[in-house]
Amino acid sequence: MDLLKERILRDGRMKEGNVLKVDSFLNHQMDIKLLNEIGKEFKRRFSDEKITKILTIEASGIGIAAIAAQHFDFVPVVFAKKTKSKNLDGELLTSQVRSFTKGIVSDIQVEKKFLTPEDNVLIIDDFLAKGQALMGLIDIVKQSGATLAGCGIVIEKGFQDGGATLREDDIRVESLVIIEEMENGTIQFRE
Amino acid sequence: MDLLKERILRDGRMKEGNVLKVDSFLNHQMDIKLLNEIGKEFKRRFSDEKITKILTIEASGIGIAAIAAQHFDFVPVVFAKKTKSKNLDGELLTSQVRSFTKGIVSDIQVEKKFLTPEDNVLIIDDFLAKGQALMGLIDIVKQSGATLAGCGIVIEKGFQDGGATLREDDIRVESLVIIEEMENGTIQFRE
Repeated sequence: MDLLKERILRDGRMKEGNVLKVDSFLNHQMDIKLLNEIGKEFKRRFSDEKITKILTIEASGIGIAAIAAQHFDFVPVVFAKKTKSKNLDGELLTSQVRSFTKGIVSDIQVEKKFLTPEDNVLIIDDFLAKGQALMGLIDIVKQSGATLAGCGIVIEKGFQDGGATLREDDIRVESLVIIEEMENGTIQFRE
Repeated sequence: MDLLKERILRDGRMKEGNVLKVDSFLNHQMDIKLLNEIGKEFKRRFSDEKITKILTIEASGIGIAAIAAQHFDFVPVVFAKKTKSKNLDGELLTSQVRSFTKGIVSDIQVEKKFLTPEDNVLIIDDFLAKGQALMGLIDIVKQSGATLAGCGIVIEKGFQDGGATLREDDIRVESLVIIEEMENGTIQFRE
């Protein structure tokens, strides 16, 4: 997706520890026009699937998933929660996720009633690196008995092993851009 | 907003302690068509303002704000973060917020560069009860030097004092529905 590559090269910022900051357009401030193009591209890639529900995880996946859902016949979006609030009172599906940017392990949870065996689920998230969040979401889809159509990722760090591991497990992962290498202040995309 | 009232009466669930659960369509699972109608209604109410940025807070405000932004000429959406991650490295605007559902006080933060004195900001959130989150967001807008156009709220609990306090302070608050009373399993809306 050239538009996205150009935007990453223009506005992304690299930091120590293979961190790519895209907070000016994707996950702190959100460029809604860009999100619309991202949603269209997810639809193009998953046009062979009849998606009935989009699953994502708070917080940065939510805006991307909500805008994308408009291109999938306005299917409902469910977002997994990272903290247990008093408001989560139904039967829960939970999975454990390690966050490398935040340095913690936490439970993520989805109320069971929002994912049913009749659902064909598209998982959407902003980043794929080691794949922890995605594996947690996939685990929750499996627990629900729903079918997993695949995962739509905005930016995959191809030099980390999450994407490869998931594809070896026959999970369909569609990443709009894959970064092959981030070194010396330059970004190489995978062709 | 009749569509929203009907949906609350049909799918909302009341719980002890004046809790109204709308997680099947607003803040865990999101009905994207409904969110679009909500966005249109915010635009209708703030059509006299030239909004340049929408500010919300993770997590449940994000989907609502992202969809609403499409009706405000696709202005950028910024969401305040509740946890401090390694990824927040710029100069921050912070404010303290007490969450009654989660029982904790926490800092919320926005990178300073995303709100400028040239901005005319619309704050959007799902609920207004005691107004803590909203007051934190308003504080952040004030610190940034931006102009606050007002606050667009999906559901206000009129029997709690947040809305009244804010309006006394001359903050423009537009709530799409205001609940006057929730008692004995019935909901009374303010006309």
